[in-house]
Amino acid sequence: MVLTLDRLNAAAPDEFVALLDGIYEHSPWVAQAAAPMRPFRTLAQLKRALVVAVREAGRERQLALIRAHPELAGKAAVAGELTAESTGEQSRAGLTHCTPEEFARLQQLNADYNAKFGWPFILAVRGPRGTGLTRAEIIATFERRLANHPDFEFAECLRNIHRIAEIRLNDRFGFVPRQGEQVWDWAEQLARHSDPGFAEQGQLTVTYLTAAHRACARQLEVWMRECGFDEVHQDAVGNVVGRYHGTDPDARMLLTGSHYDTVRNGGRYDGRLGIFVPMACVQALHRAGRRLPFGIEVVAFSEEEGQRYKATFLGSGALVGQFDMAWLDQTDADGITLHEAMTQAGLRIEDIPALRRDPARYLGFVEVHIEQGPVLDELDLPLGVVTSINGGVRYLGEIVGMASHAGTTPMGSRRDAAAAAAELCLYVERRAAQDGDSVGTVGMLEVPGGSINVVPGRCRFSLDLRAPNDAQRDRLAADVLAELARICERRGVQYRIEEAMRAAAAPSAPPWQARWERAVEALGLPVYRMPSGAGHDAMKLHEVMPQAMLFVRGGNAGISHNPLETITADDAQLCVDAYTQLLEQLAAEPQP
Amino acid sequence: MVLTLDRLNAAAPDEFVALLDGIYEHSPWVAQAAAPMRPFRTLAQLKRALVVAVREAGRERQLALIRAHPELAGKAAVAGELTAESTGEQSRAGLTHCTPEEFARLQQLNADYNAKFGWPFILAVRGPRGTGLTRAEIIATFERRLANHPDFEFAECLRNIHRIAEIRLNDRFGFVPRQGEQVWDWAEQLARHSDPGFAEQGQLTVTYLTAAHRACARQLEVWMRECGFDEVHQDAVGNVVGRYHGTDPDARMLLTGSHYDTVRNGGRYDGRLGIFVPMACVQALHRAGRRLPFGIEVVAFSEEEGQRYKATFLGSGALVGQFDMAWLDQTDADGITLHEAMTQAGLRIEDIPALRRDPARYLGFVEVHIEQGPVLDELDLPLGVVTSINGGVRYLGEIVGMASHAGTTPMGSRRDAAAAAAELCLYVERRAAQDGDSVGTVGMLEVPGGSINVVPGRCRFSLDLRAPNDAQRDRLAADVLAELARICERRGVQYRIEEAMRAAAAPSAPPWQARWERAVEALGLPVYRMPSGAGHDAMKLHEVMPQAMLFVRGGNAGISHNPLETITADDAQLCVDAYTQLLEQLAAEPQP
Repeated sequence: MVLTLDRLNAAAPDEFVALLDGIYEHSPWVAQAAAPMRPFRTLAQLKRALVVAVREAGRERQLALIRAHPELAGKAAVAGELTAESTGEQSRAGLTHCTPEEFARLQQLNADYNAKFGWPFILAVRGPRGTGLTRAEIIATFERRLANHPDFEFAECLRNIHRIAEIRLNDRFGFVPRQGEQVWDWAEQLARHSDPGFAEQGQLTVTYLTAAHRACARQLEVWMRECGFDEVHQDAVGNVVGRYHGTDPDARMLLTGSHYDTVRNGGRYDGRLGIFVPMACVQALHRAGRRLPFGIEVVAFSEEEGQRYKATFLGSGALVGQFDMAWLDQTDADGITLHEAMTQAGLRIEDIPALRRDPARYLGFVEVHIEQGPVLDELDLPLGVVTSINGGVRYLGEIVGMASHAGTTPMGSRRDAAAAAAELCLYVERRAAQDGDSVGTVGMLEVPGGSINVVPGRCRFSLDLRAPNDAQRDRLAADVLAELARICERRGVQYRIEEAMRAAAAPSAPPWQARWERAVEALGLPVYRMPSGAGHDAMKLHEVMPQAMLFVRGGNAGISHNPLETITADDAQLCVDAYTQLLEQLAAEPQP
Repeated sequence: MVLTLDRLNAAAPDEFVALLDGIYEHSPWVAQAAAPMRPFRTLAQLKRALVVAVREAGRERQLALIRAHPELAGKAAVAGELTAESTGEQSRAGLTHCTPEEFARLQQLNADYNAKFGWPFILAVRGPRGTGLTRAEIIATFERRLANHPDFEFAECLRNIHRIAEIRLNDRFGFVPRQGEQVWDWAEQLARHSDPGFAEQGQLTVTYLTAAHRACARQLEVWMRECGFDEVHQDAVGNVVGRYHGTDPDARMLLTGSHYDTVRNGGRYDGRLGIFVPMACVQALHRAGRRLPFGIEVVAFSEEEGQRYKATFLGSGALVGQFDMAWLDQTDADGITLHEAMTQAGLRIEDIPALRRDPARYLGFVEVHIEQGPVLDELDLPLGVVTSINGGVRYLGEIVGMASHAGTTPMGSRRDAAAAAAELCLYVERRAAQDGDSVGTVGMLEVPGGSINVVPGRCRFSLDLRAPNDAQRDRLAADVLAELARICERRGVQYRIEEAMRAAAAPSAPPWQARWERAVEALGLPVYRMPSGAGHDAMKLHEVMPQAMLFVRGGNAGISHNPLETITADDAQLCVDAYTQLLEQLAAEPQP
């Protein structure tokens, strides 16, 4: 019998626990703790309540929950002692049909894992799409996670338990995240196009105007047409533009989208998610034969990552009139100029100036993006509302002390450049943490030609400082530079530092941020506000119109610019749902 | 009229100041402050008293002393406004005969230097030998010192002022450090032999059994014969051995010496000084037709630095029976085995075992060595008595955290490997300083493949920990490793560390250390005791007989393994004097 929220909300506490039996393996206490959080308006809210119950249970009960799970392909599985759910899941993943080699490998991994962590390895074997991981994927994940720090791996097990519970709940509710799966499948299919040298190794790399890049653009055009966009075209810089008219074709439009190029060996959601989510929304509107009082213009930006040419944000920049004609002379690694690449792709450079959008024609710009950080994953939250795209400043520096003999130079006589850099490194960490939402990083640190027995005479370092607004960033930078001067003065060493980059912050437009917040609330999820540490196309549109972004949780601690970048179909569905909510709010507002 | 100590000691204070007028440029207060320190037994004691007067004068008067000096080739020189001494010195250095280009360069350097430091550049233009630097040397020194830290450069100016005063005093006293000059000249001449690839660039490199190395050995043989040694030969590992018999040719011998090989692009005193000083003493004994109640065996060790083959201390090791026959299969960078190199050099490998010395035949081992550190230079002391050759332990390590996006990873969610290494680096510095005479160094520090916008996931580092005795070294190492574990535990990062080297400490034999102390005292110099941070041949002899070392100050902050390594002829003379004192003490002791 299919479970419903009405039934769960109406049930006595014992019955509530019984109805959720088996969702959290052998652990009825999870449902018990969630029962007082009723009523639930949405399935997402129920899932969140169960997550909160586990989060608040303390480490002892969390460990017991982990230990309540069977080993993968372990004795219990072989002896048929698993719960019905576990049996189904392990069998669906093919774990009951391992080759002898795979079975032996899994037993070894189970033993190593248990020896290191003291609990069984937990993996949601149905994976992010819900259709199951392959045995090879399972073994690779197992091997990778064996190297994790115990604290992190403990949390990763709990996250997998929540994912297992989510899929089990979907089954009990007869819920299928259709639009989320559609988004996930589009991402999967688009990732089949990859540049030469990467495609062969199964790596995703799509840089500006390569064959793979052009194939992506064509594919996006096809999909947009299939979704029911009224106009679809590629513009003069290779952006794919789809317009879905409002009830009045001349009504102002909502501008939205993100980029379809990737970094080298990147992930499949970075950028692309922000194209697919509004596509799914337009598809739904079109299927329902519905028009909104405003148009929707989805732009798949052709270039954001600055990989082939140093012309980052080329795609979104063109929309705000920032295409720099000097870029055309840049050459790629093979000596091909940007001009040649564009003309070979059939792009009409003379049409670029016309790409500049008239802000008066638009309501504003919104962008959905994978977080590319660990925050939502750690908090077990699928969505986050962006308050600001952080401003940043970067420096490259060198401290020059005096190289001397490690044996013969007393501690009091040293001018150790590395020790001075170490002090700076720890200050940056402390000072950035003070702000709460600033970040500071010494990402490059090196004693050039260092020897085991020589006191470092030189140490090179980089600094990356970011904050949600420019004033906060500038205070952070001023403090760090002042401390560098103090450290060097006190230690009798010298330093050079030069600014390598400076970018202004792009705070979200309050009414647009509020729309995202109401959308998230409508899904029954807590509103979590966060700055964006990374730059996004919205930064460019920010210069001419109001903008606000929505973040979705990335798995694997939010890793990005990496093949391990991942989201679930359920989280993608929540994105589509939140986007739909935002459209409904806009539709309900008096049109300007 | 030649100045004498008797006259100075007997003079009224005013007369004393008048007699020393011009030694410290326009600064009679220096002599005034030194007057109460009379009587002086030696010229070295007088020089020291003047140095102490300046050291204790405070920064204001020191700065006034520096400012009392004219600029090099400056307006005063051109206008003939210098003191007689300054005029003579600058003219002797050829500074009154500069080319227009040199003159322009010097004026520019004077301007830059004054702008940076606020005082004139002071250089003892008569140099370490007392015979004058070339204009090219002066300009190169000027350029190099312009890069110094102000605190260091301030002290360097005072050191040059003391050197100027020393040379002026020598002139007034009619004193010539003949033996010191001899030692200095031997070092200069021996440095003409250098390995191919280095010789062409004027760099000194003499590695085991190269043509240059063999030429050095032959030269040393010639010089030893000229000095009057009774027996001179090269042994089976290429050591050059000179024996000067005692009154009884069968009497026990004092063993002494150091190495004549060098590191790549090394200095000319490292090792070699410890051969030349006893040579000068034997030369004097021979010239005086004098025999001591014991013999003197000077060994110029053929190999200590482990540059061509990884067989460090090969020369002194052979004397204690530590030649490892497995070394013979080692190859150098050109694929030549040690065995081939030795046989080509005519060395008889089968004779190596017989090189082992019978400790019963020897009184003990003494070694004179350049400090290779900044301590004596900073203290303005020419000589130091070694208490122990420090024991050491070295490690190579790596911290593994989690690489993540510098913009999107909040400070509280990071596992920054470089920040962990930075903490370790500062702990090592603090913990080693606690001991007073331990040293600890993180010489290698690197985030492999680090990026400006990535939180470091890995950081490699080295550790070098040394202390005057093994127990102290082991406590230091245990504390550092425990702190590393604590840091990594707290930060949730992992680490690997492996021991790369461990060497036992070699404390000086107390009676031999006492002989060096009495020798230094006899010269009118303060006894300064210090550990040796670097390893020396004495470490090997330590295993079979009592040993003690004497250190001499190195200029340029004691830099070594570098062409800037330098000593003055006066300091070399003090070495010879101290060595002579030690011989006299031994001669006066009842012979065993």
